[in-house]
Amino acid sequence: MFEKLALIGVGLIGASIALKARREGLARQIVGATRRQDTADTANRLGIVDSCGTDLAAACDGADLVIICTPVGACGDVTKIIAPRLKPGAILSEVGSVKQAVIRDMRPHVPAGVHYVPAHPIAGTEHSGPEAGFPELFEGRWAIVTPLPGEDRDAADKVAEFWRRCGSMVEFMTPEWHDKVLGIVSHLPHLIAYTIVGTADDMAGERRSEVIKFAAGGFRDFTRIAASDPTMWRDVFLNNRDAVLEILGRFQEDLFYLQRAIRWGEGDKLFELFNRTRAIRRALIDMKQA
Amino acid sequence: MFEKLALIGVGLIGASIALKARREGLARQIVGATRRQDTADTANRLGIVDSCGTDLAAACDGADLVIICTPVGACGDVTKIIAPRLKPGAILSEVGSVKQAVIRDMRPHVPAGVHYVPAHPIAGTEHSGPEAGFPELFEGRWAIVTPLPGEDRDAADKVAEFWRRCGSMVEFMTPEWHDKVLGIVSHLPHLIAYTIVGTADDMAGERRSEVIKFAAGGFRDFTRIAASDPTMWRDVFLNNRDAVLEILGRFQEDLFYLQRAIRWGEGDKLFELFNRTRAIRRALIDMKQA
Repeated sequence: MFEKLALIGVGLIGASIALKARREGLARQIVGATRRQDTADTANRLGIVDSCGTDLAAACDGADLVIICTPVGACGDVTKIIAPRLKPGAILSEVGSVKQAVIRDMRPHVPAGVHYVPAHPIAGTEHSGPEAGFPELFEGRWAIVTPLPGEDRDAADKVAEFWRRCGSMVEFMTPEWHDKVLGIVSHLPHLIAYTIVGTADDMAGERRSEVIKFAAGGFRDFTRIAASDPTMWRDVFLNNRDAVLEILGRFQEDLFYLQRAIRWGEGDKLFELFNRTRAIRRALIDMKQA
Repeated sequence: MFEKLALIGVGLIGASIALKARREGLARQIVGATRRQDTADTANRLGIVDSCGTDLAAACDGADLVIICTPVGACGDVTKIIAPRLKPGAILSEVGSVKQAVIRDMRPHVPAGVHYVPAHPIAGTEHSGPEAGFPELFEGRWAIVTPLPGEDRDAADKVAEFWRRCGSMVEFMTPEWHDKVLGIVSHLPHLIAYTIVGTADDMAGERRSEVIKFAAGGFRDFTRIAASDPTMWRDVFLNNRDAVLEILGRFQEDLFYLQRAIRWGEGDKLFELFNRTRAIRRALIDMKQA
């Protein structure tokens, strides 16, 4: 599909793309670049890409597909750095979990003749770094492409096809709707999981290990989510602020409603919700997403 | 271990106990009883117990171990009903996820000479009913026994041994500490999961199916927890009210702290928490509970 694929950032996502692209023969040459020397060394040692350096711009020389795989807060700066070396006609993409803010940060730096196609593979684990990558990460998962109005449609289709060959199902949507949907299904759940694990840890205090022992009661699922990469998630919340705050406001209202029902012993209100959420789970199972 | 085991309630937990007790030969005879005829019919059809009826008291005739496996809100009434038929020297136990309220409800009805041993196997799935039961449910999971002061220690040891033979690891603790620990590791996570799934469903509105499609982003884990039995969980929250409200208050404070950090763009506060919760996950993995 491509002559040269350049991956800026070789963490969980970048490394997984590299491994899968090589296995499927999606690019003749695959190079990586990352700011930190030790990360580059790891990527080279594991042979994840053909070569990995720390000069982000140099890695893009002659590349016909460049994918930025850094935390979303760095996408703008990275674009500014690599812009002078992007080849005319090249496709520039990224994998950010937030689309509007990333587009706002990147777009001013994209040179004329380079096709910028924002995308987001909804896949990940609680592990990070090059050693966490594996080629099957994207299989059966959704990849969302949010093409920009007025941009080249062929480039968007090519990025979509790239993700399909990585094993993903592709959906096109607007950046606005992406940020709202992801706020609901991903950003709020992560924020809540982080909070609850912190609260539990504080409450357990010195009897922490006694409490953690019984984590199978429900807590365990939250700790897995709350082990996700701190830098990536800090950037997500700072960059999808409006959508997250709106959803969070609603969540708080709903939680206070339940809190009050517990205080006043209003079992019917609790039962009504619990019964409804069970039905939602069934819908998910019917859609084979559970 | 026992001549006759009577299980009052043959849902997920009761059925799983029956299947495991039979496989391990823990009782010569195993009978069940449940209020609903259709549940009894299912239990009989599946052969989960030797026989299952709807007369709770009659099932206890001659039983040397009776375990109440109903939602916690029903434990007091059930004890009142079966009390006249409990054999002197019999052990009466239950599996409630709340201990103080259940003890308060049951204890006044326990006849002299019957040994009441509160217990709680921390095990379950999001499925309920007799057909959800399976004999491996308790394997490698904790069972907590909260013996009452002044009660027969031999009976408590016998209940502990019963749970060990069901595959569980046993821990003794006070009812007060049990309710606090479970409030942290189980009740709060369930309440939050129920809330978030409801909030997400409301927000998605008519575009629900579009949103549910992308549940793999974190939401999915919450829907599983939020599919747990509505009656059981309504009773848990109504009966562990004080502990849940205390924990919930702290959780709300912590969440507002993060909400404010997002609004003001204070990335360091977010990063600090996210980094800490990641360490908690590692501790869980070290304790082989993840």
